[in-house]
Amino acid sequence: MTRIEDLLAARYGAFAPQVKAELNPTLETLLSHRSVRQFTDENVTDDQLKLIIAAAQSASTSSSLQVCSVAIVNDKAKRERLAEVCGASGEFVRQAPVFMVWLIDFARAASILELQQIDTNTFDLIESTSLGFLDLGIASQNALLAAESLGLGGVYAGSLRNDVPSVIETLKLPKYVFPAFGLAIGHPDRAEKTSIKPRLPQAAVVHYDEYNPDAWADTVPGYDEEFAKYYAGQGVSNASWMRTLGKRLSNPEILHGRQQLRMHLEAQGFDSK
Amino acid sequence: MTRIEDLLAARYGAFAPQVKAELNPTLETLLSHRSVRQFTDENVTDDQLKLIIAAAQSASTSSSLQVCSVAIVNDKAKRERLAEVCGASGEFVRQAPVFMVWLIDFARAASILELQQIDTNTFDLIESTSLGFLDLGIASQNALLAAESLGLGGVYAGSLRNDVPSVIETLKLPKYVFPAFGLAIGHPDRAEKTSIKPRLPQAAVVHYDEYNPDAWADTVPGYDEEFAKYYAGQGVSNASWMRTLGKRLSNPEILHGRQQLRMHLEAQGFDSK
Repeated sequence: MTRIEDLLAARYGAFAPQVKAELNPTLETLLSHRSVRQFTDENVTDDQLKLIIAAAQSASTSSSLQVCSVAIVNDKAKRERLAEVCGASGEFVRQAPVFMVWLIDFARAASILELQQIDTNTFDLIESTSLGFLDLGIASQNALLAAESLGLGGVYAGSLRNDVPSVIETLKLPKYVFPAFGLAIGHPDRAEKTSIKPRLPQAAVVHYDEYNPDAWADTVPGYDEEFAKYYAGQGVSNASWMRTLGKRLSNPEILHGRQQLRMHLEAQGFDSK
Repeated sequence: MTRIEDLLAARYGAFAPQVKAELNPTLETLLSHRSVRQFTDENVTDDQLKLIIAAAQSASTSSSLQVCSVAIVNDKAKRERLAEVCGASGEFVRQAPVFMVWLIDFARAASILELQQIDTNTFDLIESTSLGFLDLGIASQNALLAAESLGLGGVYAGSLRNDVPSVIETLKLPKYVFPAFGLAIGHPDRAEKTSIKPRLPQAAVVHYDEYNPDAWADTVPGYDEEFAKYYAGQGVSNASWMRTLGKRLSNPEILHGRQQLRMHLEAQGFDSK
């Protein structure tokens, strides 16, 4: 097997697409991604951080608005507080050399509009909130890939949304700034048991010209077996993606506070109308 | 200047961070990004498309939910309709060899939950909508980078949100599927006048431990000059980022329909409560 076939086999198992192509280093970075939650003590340098931020900012930004800001949290007490927000999965927040909170930032625009005596009456639209989450996803993914290309690894922390008021207070976020998620970055601890995680077959997610409502039924049961195989390799038996999905989406009460997101968005000026 | 200094100078002008580092091919792809809106006739191959999709799926996905689907639109009449939705900026929708619509897809999960007799009563939370936009940003950015690493280029089309009902009808999207944005991909037409666009100085967007409300005032006026310089190089005089921002955010009526996003989200089952 070529390296590209290897990577596709790890990602798709029995459903790996057949591809005759040369691997390039960027593709290798992209296809090799795995989340890293355990880090060595080695530091991330200032130069590495500057490159990671430059990569994030180099990404596309809707209508040139640049509504993305980043809080880099070094203070130990603040880290501890954010780790508590993330709950059981929060250990990497304490341990990572770098922990960033990605901020939907319309406060910068608010100041600039105020200078021009223009009202901020588009900020309360759900278009603004949605654009914020979208643009932060695009930018932060560039940041993570830059880190990975430098031999670092990382993991997203959506669990920061479990307790938004604590994050806002910790980082002293003003109106029109919203903490969307965290990103931990550092040198991967090779002892961590993790590898490339299988994803749905391409036939499940790609539709041609029209949405195919049967795509899932043709593909998901087979994928569930690949998912179980992966977790068996990690020492977890009887894993099922379908049951995982059922559990995660069954009840607002198990969202650990994330069901309150609207209230917290509104409190920051993102009425999402 | 080294290549890395070149790239940072193009991105930040007078505010380029000083970095002593080796460029790697992934960083070069990331830092060289520019949007491509004009394409040659050369096709994107099936193998390239498979790699682009594999890259997208290799990205992190919140709680393993995999709520991302993609519609690849080849049908000429459908392309024309989507181009009309995008309005004045829609020419690339017609012309690009590949045009994808990125779909927030909870319909797959709805089917899987139905099998297990579990209610879909988390789908109507704004947490679900936000997570959808975020995860699609992460995935689509991987797709665009994979394309760029293969010598292709592309551009996002948020303007698909100008007329969501037309997109839904064109692609026959069922409940719990929402068209978030488009992405055009193809071989860059070298005749297109475009280059690396300047971004805000890092000091404007990076905050340490606490949000710095003065960051913008210290940096934005200088950035406005870099922005004007860039556009002067493109033959546009008197450009100003601050005025661009003011214009784009001044009034819901100039959002070309995007101010209706909530209504369209609700119609697809994304009540965003």
